[in-house]
Amino acid sequence: MKVDGRWRRTIEVEAGEVIVLDQARLPYETAWLPLRTLDDAARAIRDMHVRGAPLIGATAAYGVAIALREGARLEHACEVLAATRPTAINLRWALGEMQRRLAPVVPGDRADAAMREAARICDDDVAICEAIGRHGMALLRRDGPVRVLTHCNAGWLATVDWGTALAPIYKAHEAGIAVHVWVDETRPRNQGLLTAWELAQHGVPHTVIADNAGGHLMQRGEVDLCIVGTDRTTRTGDVCNKIGTYLKALAAHDCGVPFYVAVPSPSIDWTIADARTIPIEERSGDEVRFVAGKQIVSAASAVANPAFDVTPARLVTALITERGVTKDLASLFPEQR
Amino acid sequence: MKVDGRWRRTIEVEAGEVIVLDQARLPYETAWLPLRTLDDAARAIRDMHVRGAPLIGATAAYGVAIALREGARLEHACEVLAATRPTAINLRWALGEMQRRLAPVVPGDRADAAMREAARICDDDVAICEAIGRHGMALLRRDGPVRVLTHCNAGWLATVDWGTALAPIYKAHEAGIAVHVWVDETRPRNQGLLTAWELAQHGVPHTVIADNAGGHLMQRGEVDLCIVGTDRTTRTGDVCNKIGTYLKALAAHDCGVPFYVAVPSPSIDWTIADARTIPIEERSGDEVRFVAGKQIVSAASAVANPAFDVTPARLVTALITERGVTKDLASLFPEQR
Repeated sequence: MKVDGRWRRTIEVEAGEVIVLDQARLPYETAWLPLRTLDDAARAIRDMHVRGAPLIGATAAYGVAIALREGARLEHACEVLAATRPTAINLRWALGEMQRRLAPVVPGDRADAAMREAARICDDDVAICEAIGRHGMALLRRDGPVRVLTHCNAGWLATVDWGTALAPIYKAHEAGIAVHVWVDETRPRNQGLLTAWELAQHGVPHTVIADNAGGHLMQRGEVDLCIVGTDRTTRTGDVCNKIGTYLKALAAHDCGVPFYVAVPSPSIDWTIADARTIPIEERSGDEVRFVAGKQIVSAASAVANPAFDVTPARLVTALITERGVTKDLASLFPEQR
Repeated sequence: MKVDGRWRRTIEVEAGEVIVLDQARLPYETAWLPLRTLDDAARAIRDMHVRGAPLIGATAAYGVAIALREGARLEHACEVLAATRPTAINLRWALGEMQRRLAPVVPGDRADAAMREAARICDDDVAICEAIGRHGMALLRRDGPVRVLTHCNAGWLATVDWGTALAPIYKAHEAGIAVHVWVDETRPRNQGLLTAWELAQHGVPHTVIADNAGGHLMQRGEVDLCIVGTDRTTRTGDVCNKIGTYLKALAAHDCGVPFYVAVPSPSIDWTIADARTIPIEERSGDEVRFVAGKQIVSAASAVANPAFDVTPARLVTALITERGVTKDLASLFPEQR
């Protein structure tokens, strides 16, 4: 997608070096961060220089390749990378894919093979997201501008390209369908500002709101539908996503607003049916305590910072996957039954 | 309540001068703002140097008295003050009270009478809040620490003393009942930091969370009950309160967590049954765009900033008034039928 007018991906290989768009500096500064070592890759994920479940997976895949180039063992690389963040299933999916694909390769050829496999995971991600965009766009056809609310950033910054929740919006915008996006700020990390930034890069009209405001807008009839992404969705359709998603799903349900979740298949955890067993990352309280470098919560107060919550399937209108829109994931992915 | 160890009210008369605790500078600085003119009083309300429905009412009452001392007409003073903020009904209630009480007084004596009447409104507010505290405390008796979630600030900073939603918590804390408060940050104005500050002044254990987190905590069984305040409650029990309250009420309902609203009778609007007719203040988008003096939302993005929302009566477990806890306001206030 467009960065300062140029078409880019969030993770690229330039002269043999893996670089990522540094999301810790966005939206204030556009900078590219080179990943030269396994540590670089692990740190980029842990400290959220890259973020978004699909991009975490893609970065981990390249992390494996970089580690192998350094001479690290495959298993060690996978262990280090798997420990970076607990909730997004894409991370473990990508590491599993790399292990599976590299297992038949003789150790001496693995580093080169790993670069090719990581590139393939990235290309697959782009194709998956574009397909989600195509299927989701059909939900956006209305008379007059369609008003979409989204939470967090599930745009192209959260993936290699296109995005998940925002892919239908980009497809609609390209097709000349008028779209307006309500962008939740998404405290404490303010990923909504990343969403606003990328929508602005593409000229999609949007309005940033406090996380508190979405329910009121739905009550007032100012939201036609919600689309969010997911860090992990169970085979039963329970959706783990950025903290606060559950609250918006409740409001949508209460107000009769359709609530869609864009789910690339690598974000599906086929192994669990009970979303309460998903590990919810508790991030540093400093993300709540400090804003824009200023301490806003005094040391006299404790802080807590759970990063994800679970929206039960009963609150979700449908899941938008690369194979179509469904309530029943197993029907679209029969090979997983 | 205690400010830096001294017992104070949020609005006081010192050597004939009305002073208010400046909430625009809290929690970073404790400063008192003198109100010397009608303009001072109107500005203090409009720019949120004072805030919270009951304190807005009390400040407006003193604003009338200050205006009369300046030689202004009673009607003019009421018009100027009524125009400051649209949603809290206490503002219009207090101005109505002042007009009713001053009408029989000869104009030459009105300024002095107005100071006495404003003082009486303040004393009544303290008595009402203390009674809410007594009635509400009965809801907090449990084995082990009772975990309360609150949104915005409905503590003593929102009133003359005691608070509304926090009054039961202070009463319980005084009575030796262990309480822990989950404090919603309350973007965009961060009134949760005022709640954290006053709880810290009184040694009440508490944890500040992002507005997005409360639903997750309720799902996990970490909240025993919610208590919030209100800027206006209809005779039918619909609750207009700080934006985001509706989302927490939905989560409480979904998770089987009791959701209480502390309602002093001056916050009841007996004239309306349909909460959708309550004017919802739209405040400056700069409150969303700037944080701690830093611009976080770029000029390329629009912002919207509705300040209140409506929680329908069906989501409210009960209302805590100065006359007791009820679902049916008219039964406790038969004189209003």
